[in-house]
Amino acid sequence: MTHSIRAIAAALQAEARGDLDLQVLRASEPATAGPDDLALAMTPAYGPALQSGAARAAIVWPDADWQALGLQAAIIAPRARLAMARLTQLLDPKAVATGISPQALVDPTAMVAADASIGAFCVIGAGAVIGAGTWIADQVSIAPGVVIGADCQINAGVRLQAGVRLGDRVILQPNVVIGGDGFSFVSAEPSNVEIARETLGAAALQAPADPTWHRIHSLGGVVIGDDVEIGAGSTVDAGTIRATRIGQGSKLDNLVQIGHNVIVGAHCLICAQAGVAGSSVIGDRVVVGGKAGIADNLKIGDDVVLGGGSVVLSHVPAGRVMMGYPATKMQTHIDSYKALRRLPRLLRDFATRQ
Amino acid sequence: MTHSIRAIAAALQAEARGDLDLQVLRASEPATAGPDDLALAMTPAYGPALQSGAARAAIVWPDADWQALGLQAAIIAPRARLAMARLTQLLDPKAVATGISPQALVDPTAMVAADASIGAFCVIGAGAVIGAGTWIADQVSIAPGVVIGADCQINAGVRLQAGVRLGDRVILQPNVVIGGDGFSFVSAEPSNVEIARETLGAAALQAPADPTWHRIHSLGGVVIGDDVEIGAGSTVDAGTIRATRIGQGSKLDNLVQIGHNVIVGAHCLICAQAGVAGSSVIGDRVVVGGKAGIADNLKIGDDVVLGGGSVVLSHVPAGRVMMGYPATKMQTHIDSYKALRRLPRLLRDFATRQ
Amino acid sequence: MTHSIRAIAAALQAEARGDLDLQVLRASEPATAGPDDLALAMTPAYGPALQSGAARAAIVWPDADWQALGLQAAIIAPRARLAMARLTQLLDPKAVATGISPQALVDPTAMVAADASIGAFCVIGAGAVIGAGTWIADQVSIAPGVVIGADCQINAGVRLQAGVRLGDRVILQPNVVIGGDGFSFVSAEPSNVEIARETLGAAALQAPADPTWHRIHSLGGVVIGDDVEIGAGSTVDAGTIRATRIGQGSKLDNLVQIGHNVIVGAHCLICAQAGVAGSSVIGDRVVVGGKAGIADNLKIGDDVVLGGGSVVLSHVPAGRVMMGYPATKMQTHIDSYKALRRLPRLLRDFATRQ
Repeated sequence: MTHSIRAIAAALQAEARGDLDLQVLRASEPATAGPDDLALAMTPAYGPALQSGAARAAIVWPDADWQALGLQAAIIAPRARLAMARLTQLLDPKAVATGISPQALVDPTAMVAADASIGAFCVIGAGAVIGAGTWIADQVSIAPGVVIGADCQINAGVRLQAGVRLGDRVILQPNVVIGGDGFSFVSAEPSNVEIARETLGAAALQAPADPTWHRIHSLGGVVIGDDVEIGAGSTVDAGTIRATRIGQGSKLDNLVQIGHNVIVGAHCLICAQAGVAGSSVIGDRVVVGGKAGIADNLKIGDDVVLGGGSVVLSHVPAGRVMMGYPATKMQTHIDSYKALRRLPRLLRDFATRQ
Repeated sequence: MTHSIRAIAAALQAEARGDLDLQVLRASEPATAGPDDLALAMTPAYGPALQSGAARAAIVWPDADWQALGLQAAIIAPRARLAMARLTQLLDPKAVATGISPQALVDPTAMVAADASIGAFCVIGAGAVIGAGTWIADQVSIAPGVVIGADCQINAGVRLQAGVRLGDRVILQPNVVIGGDGFSFVSAEPSNVEIARETLGAAALQAPADPTWHRIHSLGGVVIGDDVEIGAGSTVDAGTIRATRIGQGSKLDNLVQIGHNVIVGAHCLICAQAGVAGSSVIGDRVVVGGKAGIADNLKIGDDVVLGGGSVVLSHVPAGRVMMGYPATKMQTHIDSYKALRRLPRLLRDFATRQ
Repeated sequence: MTHSIRAIAAALQAEARGDLDLQVLRASEPATAGPDDLALAMTPAYGPALQSGAARAAIVWPDADWQALGLQAAIIAPRARLAMARLTQLLDPKAVATGISPQALVDPTAMVAADASIGAFCVIGAGAVIGAGTWIADQVSIAPGVVIGADCQINAGVRLQAGVRLGDRVILQPNVVIGGDGFSFVSAEPSNVEIARETLGAAALQAPADPTWHRIHSLGGVVIGDDVEIGAGSTVDAGTIRATRIGQGSKLDNLVQIGHNVIVGAHCLICAQAGVAGSSVIGDRVVVGGKAGIADNLKIGDDVVLGGGSVVLSHVPAGRVMMGYPATKMQTHIDSYKALRRLPRLLRDFATRQ
């Protein structure tokens, strides 16, 4: 399906120049673009590639001389990635509603909206609720009593365990697990972990008389807000007696772990392989870099940014940028790190003078 | 289903006071508890919340003045989390045995105990053994020859590959993979990794004449002990010629990776996103913090505690508390870290005097 | 099925001594080997274990006195692990071609090679292509239009989303997800992440007027080269407008994350729980240690080795060995680390003199 430059500019709420009726088929990088492609050349760095490719139309940076670049039409993008969001949405082939597969196993007491789709080999448990316009791919497991809002997109292999509630427009990538049991175990006598924390590791640890770990069951479920997206293979554990929560508009990347009882605020970004341990509370609009870890029972304020690979071991006030292991203010981390690089020389100098 | 305070106290082996016939429906946090809830107020910090909520009964800390807190009945919990273990077990709705789903594909040579349950769209391979009372959820894959003990709970999407043996009462959360092939490759000539390890990174690395990685196949399977629990999305690889092993009573959290040939002892706790590389041996009662990593071919003694985010690059004697990257004794790590924070000022002072 | 020492030595391209017609059933560790086992004793350290076990034949180190060790036959292995690769391949029971399961749902427009196998409860979408000799296990999802080459092995629970193309002889371990949507979101105004990067964390962050994250859709798919292997639970995201790529012969371990638009070269090794953020380009023959992370938009040269747990925050030239957080040359990291261990004493000495 082709789109005119005029239509794309309108969808992008952007200005267009040249032949507005020119039709394009798809988006492309400038160097490899063919004559029916819309090249994406949103910064001047793409200028040469644009000239070496065969695109007749492109999205270009604000003051680009598009005619000199050999284009017949151009769309001006003041904020490149925002234009990308609108453009890729326009070009994304929509998932087609397919109704309920005859190979799905839907409990007769489940309430499935008339226009919802359910793929092959899905299992929908007793009393589950599937909202209007929601699309469930193949081989998904929905436990009894789970509630899914409207216009959600649940990809293949997702597991929603008992006690899970999803808002509207939630997107779950393949093999996400929500509502698995929390990792919560207790020993009859104080454990080595408790002793290590209390003594800051000063005491040598001994075998306890009874090493058995008693399981604390997870009865609290999970509540996922509207417009949340969760990446492939990520896991969100059920709360103990109240729900684990992900706030509306928050986005989680792949292989992220959210522990039991955690509360994630609204409009957070949590990048790949990050983890939040049990009962920690993350504010609104917090950004957690890839592979970052947040220990248990901590409070992270609103608008905090954690650098990739950080390990947070204490509370963080609102508005801070943090880095390191253990995480500190970014500037403190940079100062320490620079000093550390100079330290071997300092030690040599110091030794020489003694 | 309601429970009397008397019955709950008996199950918790705890003392109860007040109206022991009072009935409660579920557990709740003190602030949000209704009149039919049992509030969990196990430390004095919960006192005000208890008074603002509507609970008539609560589990309280040892010397709580429960009548002054407005309660009609109270259960005394000297070790709060242990009481939680017993209470949540009591209140957890049991998985109902459902028999063998007509949509499951069970090989006729598989030996399935009469009272075992197998969910829809499961595949149970030839010669597999499923023990008494074991419950297998939907869409699970059990390879030919796999042996599963009694009273196990295998959740949706679990994959048990060839050569896997589970003990009794093993719990696998959704999408766990056990017995995938180990990550074991070898080049014809010494590889850059071998050169880097030998020269400690001093030599600049060159392209080898033949960069092909030859695959070492995994023939050894995996043996999982009794009472082991493994979290959602975790992976345990098969051994090369002998089994990878997880000892009895050990608990693994979500997204944990256990490499080929690894031996994990009994009663260990391995927290989320931790990883153990190939052929390392972990003692009994070891606690591995979240995101911690243990390099290959190492020996970790009994009763070791590794802090979250630690990276262990050498053997660890029994009873040690370790932290950092590379991991050292916790006190050494704390001293170094504090000194590092003072280093930028030291460098300024030192520069001033020169 | 038994193998003669002569046949095994021939398969290993190795020299053999003693009774070459001796038959063995399987490989074993020296200490636990029975009389029908081939003991693997590839270094002198295994000598005593060999004598305590009951093996009559073994693979031994180059100058072993095999007769004095009580053996009737011996195979000499100059490069032990290479011999392991050939031996385990020889002993691995082959996956048996089983044809197309009657419980698989294969779209009539999919093109499936005559000798391909497809397991139960698989879904093969419209227009998908499955190459000759390819073996697909149970409960796999193949989206419409996906292309799979010849002689691939796709294990249970794998999800291949739209736009994925696999080469020949690709091995995917269970629950791998390829082609999930990239983690790519943009705010209408510059976000706190952009501000934190620009100011290096100096500015306190405020709530933006509009915290909404707009989704950039992933239209570019994923291209996986010949002879690639990907470990259990790993995720490779789709590119935005061009494909994410994994080069031929590269091997990825379990729970690895490859972000959108990433290009991984040929013959790389990426160990468990490592992650590569969006749009980074990894050269050929790069080795990424376990749990290592590479930030977004970086270029890692050919033949680089990254130590386990490293966090790479800047470009890396070819041939470097890197370690640490942030990663530096290995020797720099070791020097800094050693100096840091001496720092607490230095600070005490320095304070004493003032």
